[in-house]
Amino acid sequence: MRNYNISIIKGDGIGPEIVDEAIKVLNAVAKKCDFTLSYKEYLMGGIAIDTTGVPLPDETVEGVLNSDACLFGAIGGEKWDTLPRELRPETGLLKFREKMGVYANLRPAIVYDELVNASTLKPEVIKGCDIMVVRELIGGIYFGQPRENDGFKAFNTMVYTKPEIVRIGKTAFELARKRSKRVCSVDKANVLEVSQLWRDTMNELSKDYPDVELSHMYVDNAAMQLVRNPKQFDVIVTGNIFGDILSDTASMVVGSIGLLPSASTGDKTAIYEPIHGSAPDIAGLGIANPIATILSAAMMLKYTLNEEKASDLIEQAIKDALKDGYRTKDLAAFDAKEVLNCVAMGDKIVEYI
Amino acid sequence: MRNYNISIIKGDGIGPEIVDEAIKVLNAVAKKCDFTLSYKEYLMGGIAIDTTGVPLPDETVEGVLNSDACLFGAIGGEKWDTLPRELRPETGLLKFREKMGVYANLRPAIVYDELVNASTLKPEVIKGCDIMVVRELIGGIYFGQPRENDGFKAFNTMVYTKPEIVRIGKTAFELARKRSKRVCSVDKANVLEVSQLWRDTMNELSKDYPDVELSHMYVDNAAMQLVRNPKQFDVIVTGNIFGDILSDTASMVVGSIGLLPSASTGDKTAIYEPIHGSAPDIAGLGIANPIATILSAAMMLKYTLNEEKASDLIEQAIKDALKDGYRTKDLAAFDAKEVLNCVAMGDKIVEYI
Ligand SMILES: CC(C)[C@H](C(=O)O)[C@@H](O)C(=O)O
Ligand SMILES: CC(C)[C@H](C(=O)O)[C@@H](O)C(=O)O
Repeated sequence: MRNYNISIIKGDGIGPEIVDEAIKVLNAVAKKCDFTLSYKEYLMGGIAIDTTGVPLPDETVEGVLNSDACLFGAIGGEKWDTLPRELRPETGLLKFREKMGVYANLRPAIVYDELVNASTLKPEVIKGCDIMVVRELIGGIYFGQPRENDGFKAFNTMVYTKPEIVRIGKTAFELARKRSKRVCSVDKANVLEVSQLWRDTMNELSKDYPDVELSHMYVDNAAMQLVRNPKQFDVIVTGNIFGDILSDTASMVVGSIGLLPSASTGDKTAIYEPIHGSAPDIAGLGIANPIATILSAAMMLKYTLNEEKASDLIEQAIKDALKDGYRTKDLAAFDAKEVLNCVAMGDKIVEYI
Repeated sequence: MRNYNISIIKGDGIGPEIVDEAIKVLNAVAKKCDFTLSYKEYLMGGIAIDTTGVPLPDETVEGVLNSDACLFGAIGGEKWDTLPRELRPETGLLKFREKMGVYANLRPAIVYDELVNASTLKPEVIKGCDIMVVRELIGGIYFGQPRENDGFKAFNTMVYTKPEIVRIGKTAFELARKRSKRVCSVDKANVLEVSQLWRDTMNELSKDYPDVELSHMYVDNAAMQLVRNPKQFDVIVTGNIFGDILSDTASMVVGSIGLLPSASTGDKTAIYEPIHGSAPDIAGLGIANPIATILSAAMMLKYTLNEEKASDLIEQAIKDALKDGYRTKDLAAFDAKEVLNCVAMGDKIVEYI
């Protein structure tokens, strides 16, 4: 029987609650589809600081690198925000992404018909919307050297090399092939040299994908178009900081961030996590929405473990549960038949599987 | 009688049509408020390239610097997009901003009750919204050195010094004092050193403005919040590229970019222009919406010439014309009683004055 080694990072706040539900659902589909999953838990973020003194213990780096994929909850909280920069949860997170080599961050933004009212955008603007944002995750201004702050002057460097652009470009083109075959590359080539190289490289690369249509958009216009007419997009590919901004904008097209999963993939391993944070304000209350994490687990099955059928089963179960009016508290305002807590939503999804 | 010297740059595409209407309206209020305006026209952008060989002739730089303020239409068009970088309209525009020392770009996003349906956002989300985005305009990654593209590796530098942050911060705090007294500073201080200096400096500066509430927001969250709940914002202050992106997002809160003016101010002179582009596709058809340019002229009266009464008169006339159902073609779908062309809309606003 096929077995996969999954590393688990529950993290802080609502992290443990939502990851537990995802594991429950994973076990249910595994059983149904005849494979097994072995889990090993590692520490990161605030809880790692409290337990080991550092946000990213070496053991976590080792363990995740040696696993097939990592399922991740969320990290951080006010408690650790005043620590020196090198000890903060975010620093751990960035180092983690870099060490895992996960250069491609995939963030799907899919509007479910049942929740078309959950967005602040008008239903007719978003109905049927299905966007995949592909964000470069371990380069650009996040990691660029030199960087400095002497208290009078501070700077960072936004830098890309051609191979970095090619590999993220390939990810986007390959994904588009399985979708509507359109890639929109977002940059600021009318101002930035680094964007000009980005654009030139994407144009070159597109010759290898004659079946995929490539277009270019400036980042300011892209931010605008995501609000004006999000349905025009299929795959969006962009650099690290533009992707940070645009994927959050795209999430607002869907509206409820409790529904949005993400994948961070590369050549070594992959990390799957909800896009929302650790929500310390509702941690422990049992009311968190586990769907984003469960959908992240579904992405893991599809993109890393190649268990497409199991992945589809989860997605369908979630759609069915939503269609039948089951909601967590954050979605209670949108045609709820019954409002479930975190554990009950996990159970409900298992039922539908 | 008070007289002001206004430099005029009509530019490309619809630029000439819309600027002509703004001048018409300016003359009408000047007459009513007992001052005079002298205009002098200068070339920039595509038309400057065609006429003089460069996008920003020295004569334009000189002329605008020696004027009280500049009323600007729009520049650019496909025709000039393939020119080498140093000859492109955008390069001229950036050089122009730098030479004019206009470090503060003000972009109000005000939702008119009459056009509350023009946005893709739900009316209840935007009704009554009144945001002022203050974007740093002559620093940051747009102008940072070093910058390079060798065809394999390319980079830009995002840099700010404390005095640069202080002067834009002051602009924001002063503006907030005349509004709802709240400034939200947007950065990415959890990742970037340049943002940490930005945040520290804003905190320091806020001590001089105890009557204004300062908050901070990460740029990804700000992009999201502008869509989720734009009414939470009063004044937003941010760096050059974040401001480029966020002000375009904010414009979508209003919906119709034909209504959105901007001001670029500094210690030497000021430039007033609509936020929309030169729209070559409709140039010469006479159907362009002149309101954004007319509102820019109203900002000029208020912020540079201190003719507040004249400015209010224009704003009120526009509100009245909209309330009575007069629309240009771009707004025809929103409760139009009569659709006017560009010249007729200018005339109508003069009538209301
Ligand atoms: C927490 C922060 C460093 C992170 C980022 O900017 O990448 C977050 O915003 C994200 O998008 O995962
Ligand atoms: C044309 C471009 C260089 C410019 C900018 O990025 O500043 C434009 O987007 C703007 O916002 O005025």
